[in-house]
Amino acid sequence: MLYGARDLRTTEMDIPTLGEDDVLVKVAAVGVCGSDMHYYDAGRNGLNVLLQPTVLGHEASGVVVAAGPLAGIDVGTRVAVEPAVGCGRCPTCREGNYNVCPNGTCFGSPPTHGTMTEYLATPARGVHPLPDTIDTVVGSLIEPLSVAVWAVERAQVRLGHRVLVTGAGPIGLLVAQVAKASGATEVIVTDINDDRLAVATQLGATRTINTRTTPLEDLQVDRVIECTAVPAVLWSAIRTVRPHGRVTVVGQAAPSVDGLPLAYLQRYEVDLVTAFRYAHAFPTAIALAASGAVDLDRILTGRFSLNQAAEAVQAPVQDPTHLKVVVTPDS
Amino acid sequence: MLYGARDLRTTEMDIPTLGEDDVLVKVAAVGVCGSDMHYYDAGRNGLNVLLQPTVLGHEASGVVVAAGPLAGIDVGTRVAVEPAVGCGRCPTCREGNYNVCPNGTCFGSPPTHGTMTEYLATPARGVHPLPDTIDTVVGSLIEPLSVAVWAVERAQVRLGHRVLVTGAGPIGLLVAQVAKASGATEVIVTDINDDRLAVATQLGATRTINTRTTPLEDLQVDRVIECTAVPAVLWSAIRTVRPHGRVTVVGQAAPSVDGLPLAYLQRYEVDLVTAFRYAHAFPTAIALAASGAVDLDRILTGRFSLNQAAEAVQAPVQDPTHLKVVVTPDS
Amino acid sequence: MLYGARDLRTTEMDIPTLGEDDVLVKVAAVGVCGSDMHYYDAGRNGLNVLLQPTVLGHEASGVVVAAGPLAGIDVGTRVAVEPAVGCGRCPTCREGNYNVCPNGTCFGSPPTHGTMTEYLATPARGVHPLPDTIDTVVGSLIEPLSVAVWAVERAQVRLGHRVLVTGAGPIGLLVAQVAKASGATEVIVTDINDDRLAVATQLGATRTINTRTTPLEDLQVDRVIECTAVPAVLWSAIRTVRPHGRVTVVGQAAPSVDGLPLAYLQRYEVDLVTAFRYAHAFPTAIALAASGAVDLDRILTGRFSLNQAAEAVQAPVQDPTHLKVVVTPDS
Amino acid sequence: MLYGARDLRTTEMDIPTLGEDDVLVKVAAVGVCGSDMHYYDAGRNGLNVLLQPTVLGHEASGVVVAAGPLAGIDVGTRVAVEPAVGCGRCPTCREGNYNVCPNGTCFGSPPTHGTMTEYLATPARGVHPLPDTIDTVVGSLIEPLSVAVWAVERAQVRLGHRVLVTGAGPIGLLVAQVAKASGATEVIVTDINDDRLAVATQLGATRTINTRTTPLEDLQVDRVIECTAVPAVLWSAIRTVRPHGRVTVVGQAAPSVDGLPLAYLQRYEVDLVTAFRYAHAFPTAIALAASGAVDLDRILTGRFSLNQAAEAVQAPVQDPTHLKVVVTPDS
Repeated sequence: MLYGARDLRTTEMDIPTLGEDDVLVKVAAVGVCGSDMHYYDAGRNGLNVLLQPTVLGHEASGVVVAAGPLAGIDVGTRVAVEPAVGCGRCPTCREGNYNVCPNGTCFGSPPTHGTMTEYLATPARGVHPLPDTIDTVVGSLIEPLSVAVWAVERAQVRLGHRVLVTGAGPIGLLVAQVAKASGATEVIVTDINDDRLAVATQLGATRTINTRTTPLEDLQVDRVIECTAVPAVLWSAIRTVRPHGRVTVVGQAAPSVDGLPLAYLQRYEVDLVTAFRYAHAFPTAIALAASGAVDLDRILTGRFSLNQAAEAVQAPVQDPTHLKVVVTPDS
Repeated sequence: MLYGARDLRTTEMDIPTLGEDDVLVKVAAVGVCGSDMHYYDAGRNGLNVLLQPTVLGHEASGVVVAAGPLAGIDVGTRVAVEPAVGCGRCPTCREGNYNVCPNGTCFGSPPTHGTMTEYLATPARGVHPLPDTIDTVVGSLIEPLSVAVWAVERAQVRLGHRVLVTGAGPIGLLVAQVAKASGATEVIVTDINDDRLAVATQLGATRTINTRTTPLEDLQVDRVIECTAVPAVLWSAIRTVRPHGRVTVVGQAAPSVDGLPLAYLQRYEVDLVTAFRYAHAFPTAIALAASGAVDLDRILTGRFSLNQAAEAVQAPVQDPTHLKVVVTPDS
Repeated sequence: MLYGARDLRTTEMDIPTLGEDDVLVKVAAVGVCGSDMHYYDAGRNGLNVLLQPTVLGHEASGVVVAAGPLAGIDVGTRVAVEPAVGCGRCPTCREGNYNVCPNGTCFGSPPTHGTMTEYLATPARGVHPLPDTIDTVVGSLIEPLSVAVWAVERAQVRLGHRVLVTGAGPIGLLVAQVAKASGATEVIVTDINDDRLAVATQLGATRTINTRTTPLEDLQVDRVIECTAVPAVLWSAIRTVRPHGRVTVVGQAAPSVDGLPLAYLQRYEVDLVTAFRYAHAFPTAIALAASGAVDLDRILTGRFSLNQAAEAVQAPVQDPTHLKVVVTPDS
Repeated sequence: MLYGARDLRTTEMDIPTLGEDDVLVKVAAVGVCGSDMHYYDAGRNGLNVLLQPTVLGHEASGVVVAAGPLAGIDVGTRVAVEPAVGCGRCPTCREGNYNVCPNGTCFGSPPTHGTMTEYLATPARGVHPLPDTIDTVVGSLIEPLSVAVWAVERAQVRLGHRVLVTGAGPIGLLVAQVAKASGATEVIVTDINDDRLAVATQLGATRTINTRTTPLEDLQVDRVIECTAVPAVLWSAIRTVRPHGRVTVVGQAAPSVDGLPLAYLQRYEVDLVTAFRYAHAFPTAIALAASGAVDLDRILTGRFSLNQAAEAVQAPVQDPTHLKVVVTPDS
């Protein structure tokens, strides 16, 4: 439970009650995301501000231990948890776009409590069974993998594309793998950290560029997928895109950014689109992890108990060799 | 011939020779566009600078008076002229996207001479026959109508959409009509000039808003088509778009613009796209004008002889009741 | 209540009880559809067979007279009724494609009772408010208009298209109007009845063809929308489509049809698609009727009381000048 | 040169002259396709009939030995030959859809001579450079691989899809590999020959079904890609497709086929589309072969000299363990 910036404490809470469509999940693992770090550091993340004590976390896996009568899922099923499933009633949800539902909540986005807890209640449509080939703890990475799957779908990556992925953090490394699995024949990853770029190469990037030393000028790509949230990176990446190409922003966007090269976008009709969470992406993410098309194990670099949650939240900042760390309430 | 800012002179030129695919057009009328005004005023337009004397103009109609052996068009045919048809050989052209051909030239974009001339040579694929129901001089407005057709196609306006068109100049007024012809059931036009908004209403806008006095805050639209080239207008229009909506920039974009509301675009996955000239749009524009779905006559507010070209280029600035003026070399 | 072929009787039923999401509609009018006629005549319609007594009808309008606590709609609201809204829980529904939900029911498809009744209970998402400009009885035609809207959406009719509509019955006449409202600049309607073709012309068709006397051979269109359910008509229409065009089957398809010109489809990559009911189409249909873009009044040619239901169901067959007749339980 | 059914002879021909855009290719290898076998056996293929002596073959690779002044390609370049590039002038070509150009010719489609010849002249846009990693003879299989690439594009295979490929001949085996490279997580291949199904498994199919013994009834797939040209196979495959899925016919279609399950297509809005040759697919095919995503070597099972052409054309029929055989005029 985060009480304010840098004030994270373990507390006792009641086990939630279930509606007829709900399931209760005993949480096995919760990944730490950049947004968790922002809340912990500053009490806010983008436009969202912590106003009351809130449980952090939205990347979770676990085991179903109870289910409402209409849930349609067996107790004992190991699952990945989809933390934001929309209100289910508005036109946006009814058209299938629940990720951009104006009424939707998300675990771990204050004031909605998150998943760094022992038990979690959620609508049945928010849990996705894990096959035998995916370990329950590793299953918590299905959430960030779903971010990558959705980003690549929004990017409309197609067979034979040259794709530029900016940023070799956990999301960038997953996006690069998913882009390749989608038929991209060139996947170029940029970062300012050579160690992360080396991981990108291990995971299948066909080329890496350290943008601290090498400009992007001579590239010509079909798609850019932006995973750094740094506007200057986005602007220079845009200029590598061929006529009628497409740029997709995944990194968390600031409310107002300066320096958009709009004339370039217009001269070549390059589209600028964004990806927000994911819709209908968990089954695909699970299939990709199960088939080995995406390597999640290489991304998972640290495990912490629930009592070490504060340490976990700071780990990726304090040790840049960390990619994704998880909290394991069950251990 | 423009020799420099505010230095436009009539000169004698040779009648151009024709390739086997080319036609010679005796020019009947040339519309004056904002870009012509910028070249005249400042010797530049956006990124393009006048470095040598160049004939202005790119909106033209006329009569075919000669044709190469492979042109496949009869002498005497009245035509609208498409001023930019791509190199025809690069992958971008081969895929049908000739408007964003990196090698393409356009009449009236220095150093390529424009259409304010008596005779014009062009590849046959750059002329489009006018039906009997379209007057030859009015036919010069097929070019700006094609801009509007392409903008609405890029905007993906669909049956039942609510469309916001920012700017009630010639392009905005044509875009509003084309959006309505495409099935939009609400077409809202904004401007800061009530006279122009009154024309919008005459031409079928279902609502007009003077943004000098009325904020856009309570709107919720499916599409925005931006025709003012003013970033602040674009930013406020973006915030009216529903989740998964789409914003299309038609007004000429500046190289770098500040204040992009990227977090809003991302939260609702609103796409930001642009329209540059047009591809395959002239036949549709001609069909819309011929059927009466679009009224060109109401847009055409002034006619000038070739000797009055300098006056014509300044007319829309000096008299804001002008919408589109044409130069008629033939008269 | 249809007890068997040609055995339609008026019976007393209990007023249905409401779930928390439901509304109760006092029915004002119910349109008679071809499927109703088939059930009446033969006790079956396509694959679906009448096995127990079932109330007919699925095109309805009325007034909300009671609403569950979560329905979110006021008592007294005049509405059009959407008769098939999917189970709301399966992946197909969750992705927004509720019209093809494998679990879905539809009013008036046995064994689900239909709308030829005084009171009707339905989920709130199945009613759509009518604006003041649409009469309540005419509002029952919003359902067939939604069929037309969806057909045109599936057909991907775009600005400037030449569209061939086969069949000038109620659906064909609505499809022709909607295609025109979507930007088609040529709308060609075929039938074997000159009176119906005359109505098509009144409603905006740019050309009509009596296929009893005139072959289609010289046509070249972008889209075909097939509304006759006669395979031979479909096959000859397919051969009028340009390369990369699209054919959409709206007329009720038989389980197995012979004579598909597959080589033609392949040589020109013409797509063959179908339309089944509608998804998210009622609001658009209402907007088109309200704006006058579509004329429903001209389609509504007969009104019958509930006691005259059997007569109503036979009227369009017995009198071919009928287009759409309605039963008005409220009168 | 095929003089009639089963009458194939080697003849002397002049080396063709070149236009300014053309190149002359010394042919290294020519794959034998089912259409070649049909012409050889019956003097016809589908709608096309042999009326005068014609050189067979349309799958070719070789080396550029001369080039016109505008060809823009160096002598000595090793290339795959694209045998059908459209007229380049009609609207269909101008929109980028040159494969369905109504005026287009194709090497080896009578009366146009084919590629089983020592020297071949073609427009420069019809040759595609081979990278060092692709052997020149194997490069002749870029043509059938392009068929597969285009089929998968037309099929709109997306990340996470379950894809059913009917037929494990050369095209089916290439389609299966390309579908997997496009992100399909299940690729099910059917055939009636267990040896061919074993090859499918080696090349990455996740499941194979011998339809002689096992019905398809319990499948539920997102996409079908039909590569057998047998209508009964197509009809049973259609019934495995989920709501809003898509069926793509690649196998050569007959002019008229009976038994289309149109009611099934309509109830679930399953689209029926076709693939004809390819457009813009050679560069992608080359990239896939170069990256190892597709294995061409396993498909190439026989090599014959030009004098053995008649033997080559009959080889796949006489020895069903053959997949693709090539004629090598250069050896």
